[in-house]
Amino acid sequence: MAIIVQKFGGTSLADTDKIKNVAKAVVREKELGNDVIVIVSAMGHTTDNLIKLAHEISKNPSEREMDMLMSTGEQVSISLLTMAIQELGYKAVSMTGAQVGIITEDTHSKARILDIKKDKLLEHVQNGEIVIVAGFQGITKTGEITTLGRGGSDTSAVAIAAKLRVERCDIYSDVEGIYTTDPRIVPTANKLKEISYEEMLELARVGANVLHPRSVETAKQFQVPMRLRSSFKLDDLGTLIIGVEKMEIYKPVTGLACDKSQVRVVICDVPDKPGNASKLFTLLAKHELSVDMIIQSFARTTNNTNDIAFTIDKDDLNKFVGMKDEITSILNPSNIHIDEDIAKISIVGAGMIDRPGIAAQMFETLAKEGVNIKMISTSEIKISCLVEKMHAKQATEALCKSFELEGKEVALVHGTLPD
Amino acid sequence: MAIIVQKFGGTSLADTDKIKNVAKAVVREKELGNDVIVIVSAMGHTTDNLIKLAHEISKNPSEREMDMLMSTGEQVSISLLTMAIQELGYKAVSMTGAQVGIITEDTHSKARILDIKKDKLLEHVQNGEIVIVAGFQGITKTGEITTLGRGGSDTSAVAIAAKLRVERCDIYSDVEGIYTTDPRIVPTANKLKEISYEEMLELARVGANVLHPRSVETAKQFQVPMRLRSSFKLDDLGTLIIGVEKMEIYKPVTGLACDKSQVRVVICDVPDKPGNASKLFTLLAKHELSVDMIIQSFARTTNNTNDIAFTIDKDDLNKFVGMKDEITSILNPSNIHIDEDIAKISIVGAGMIDRPGIAAQMFETLAKEGVNIKMISTSEIKISCLVEKMHAKQATEALCKSFELEGKEVALVHGTLPD
Repeated sequence: MAIIVQKFGGTSLADTDKIKNVAKAVVREKELGNDVIVIVSAMGHTTDNLIKLAHEISKNPSEREMDMLMSTGEQVSISLLTMAIQELGYKAVSMTGAQVGIITEDTHSKARILDIKKDKLLEHVQNGEIVIVAGFQGITKTGEITTLGRGGSDTSAVAIAAKLRVERCDIYSDVEGIYTTDPRIVPTANKLKEISYEEMLELARVGANVLHPRSVETAKQFQVPMRLRSSFKLDDLGTLIIGVEKMEIYKPVTGLACDKSQVRVVICDVPDKPGNASKLFTLLAKHELSVDMIIQSFARTTNNTNDIAFTIDKDDLNKFVGMKDEITSILNPSNIHIDEDIAKISIVGAGMIDRPGIAAQMFETLAKEGVNIKMISTSEIKISCLVEKMHAKQATEALCKSFELEGKEVALVHGTLPD
Repeated sequence: MAIIVQKFGGTSLADTDKIKNVAKAVVREKELGNDVIVIVSAMGHTTDNLIKLAHEISKNPSEREMDMLMSTGEQVSISLLTMAIQELGYKAVSMTGAQVGIITEDTHSKARILDIKKDKLLEHVQNGEIVIVAGFQGITKTGEITTLGRGGSDTSAVAIAAKLRVERCDIYSDVEGIYTTDPRIVPTANKLKEISYEEMLELARVGANVLHPRSVETAKQFQVPMRLRSSFKLDDLGTLIIGVEKMEIYKPVTGLACDKSQVRVVICDVPDKPGNASKLFTLLAKHELSVDMIIQSFARTTNNTNDIAFTIDKDDLNKFVGMKDEITSILNPSNIHIDEDIAKISIVGAGMIDRPGIAAQMFETLAKEGVNIKMISTSEIKISCLVEKMHAKQATEALCKSFELEGKEVALVHGTLPD
């Protein structure tokens, strides 16, 4: 029998009634003749509530203890969902990350998966049981409980799917698929029928909050077909994420994403000596601070210094602020400037590769709208511009129009019609 | 350095402010120059909330999944308490039952501890860390999560104390010690300064809801000195529970307990054949149903049948009702009668052994009050009488008076004065 991996997020598991609905979705897949492994997140607001408790006790709780705390959320979900499936008359068994053997590196709060033991999982599957696995969590070789960081449950699901070489990995959430852009901002945005790993990856990285890039990377690496679908509309097949070679690409730009979760940092007047940038980013890496866009200005002839600008996650801002003294002592800048009032607008498309002029079209569209571009970064299939937060909506709408990311005709290219 | 084991119950950990207070109590012990291992229960109403969630999904959830669910409660507590201790500037580390290696038998919901691995615990202790261990939970040899049943955290604490041969095991709760009887029923009840394991055991078994008998049994077996004390009054030393040989016994009756959590079952007119009682109690044991008082009547000459009466825990009643058909098919009784309207009053005292007439005094006291005795059972240091629930308070008060379990003079025997 084929194995299907299903992953359900917190919104789909917000209360016991929703958990019962998820049980039906699981059983439905089993009834189709498949073996089913289910990966779940914590129920609804559990994670937020646990974080609140921790912060009542400490402003800066130890990451090890946070992992100990947070991993209880998924453990509650797996037991309740297993009960709900058993209540429908099916054999089911719950497993924590430790019980499965989701082995991670020895880093807390955002550990990477090193290996997944498949013996116990397969033993239960071969026993006819539906297996419910706690997402987001793992265990180190020495038995420490770790969590995988944001989007961790998606990563758990895809990693298990890859390890077991399953038929498909279905990611259920409260969204119905991948849209050309956020339908909350642009109501005419279209749902895509399929999208390539590469495009999804760029969209995920730039803040289309539907799938974490790590899960898409893993899916791409092991060629796991993923389906992003709604747990509230089981008949809707959502969006299939597959290899680019299986897609026909008609349009240079597939999607647009707007990310307001970044902060821009400018390290001003860093002496232009070899190795300074390296020192800075080595330091940031040592503190496990992820950096996104990076720009180093030309050396100013007057005082022979550079400005180094980059963006970091808003959640890492406190950590960064704590490092300012260290950075100052190493780089001796005139100032460290932090700008929270930014949004990053990105356009993504595998078809961009062979089509020059896409960047120019993007900058021109923004210029016509009077939107000032604060930073630019590009990859093969993505162009990102940093703009002021107040311009985010206007920029998104103008770019959607310019790159035809709305309207029914476009939908037929490789999206489906909006409902 | 001496190791002190401290155990804090759910009431002491009801919210983050209380957790901070517990952290202070822990640090205080550390400051006295001791190494400290702390065992905690789930926060306040966590357990009830988790049970509620489970029951929203299933009336009869699987015990394995209940253990999976319930064990999250203590995991939340250990992480939060560890954070609170770290916040006070001390090194601390949390450990689940699985991480410590609290190995239990392969039974869910009330597993017994088979062994405790001490290596990891001692490694942390020797590293100067305060170790916070999740009570109530363990793990089987095959990695299944188990719970120890009611009073499980006390058992965890004493078992760890015994394994590590620690100086003392302090059980903190919202009560200030052991009283001659429940001070909520008899306000003049006295707090005992010390009590023997044996007496405590009988008191615990008959429903003095302060310590679970399993923990006292374990403490007795390994001669672990236990102190029952209040987490809200750290200067109060509470009651010390020690070996009887270390105590002076002045009075035949040390304490009285009233237990309303039992249900009486009467299996009526069981044919008087050898092996019938054995069949019945083997069956009950097979279903892991604990039986307390047992009485088998004389065979009636008219129809050569017995009545077999016993008491079970109210919580096991549903389970028992589910077994009625099986019992009927095996024993062919005329009726199975269930009586929930009962209370068990017990008097306990190691001094009872050498003093005849205590039982007579108890029955006489109850008779004078017009309280009908439905069942009697005795042990070397305990006499229990089943009475109607409506008579419980009256019986308790009369017996306290009769056996001098109240008043200041008595307190001086081996209790302290009430506050």
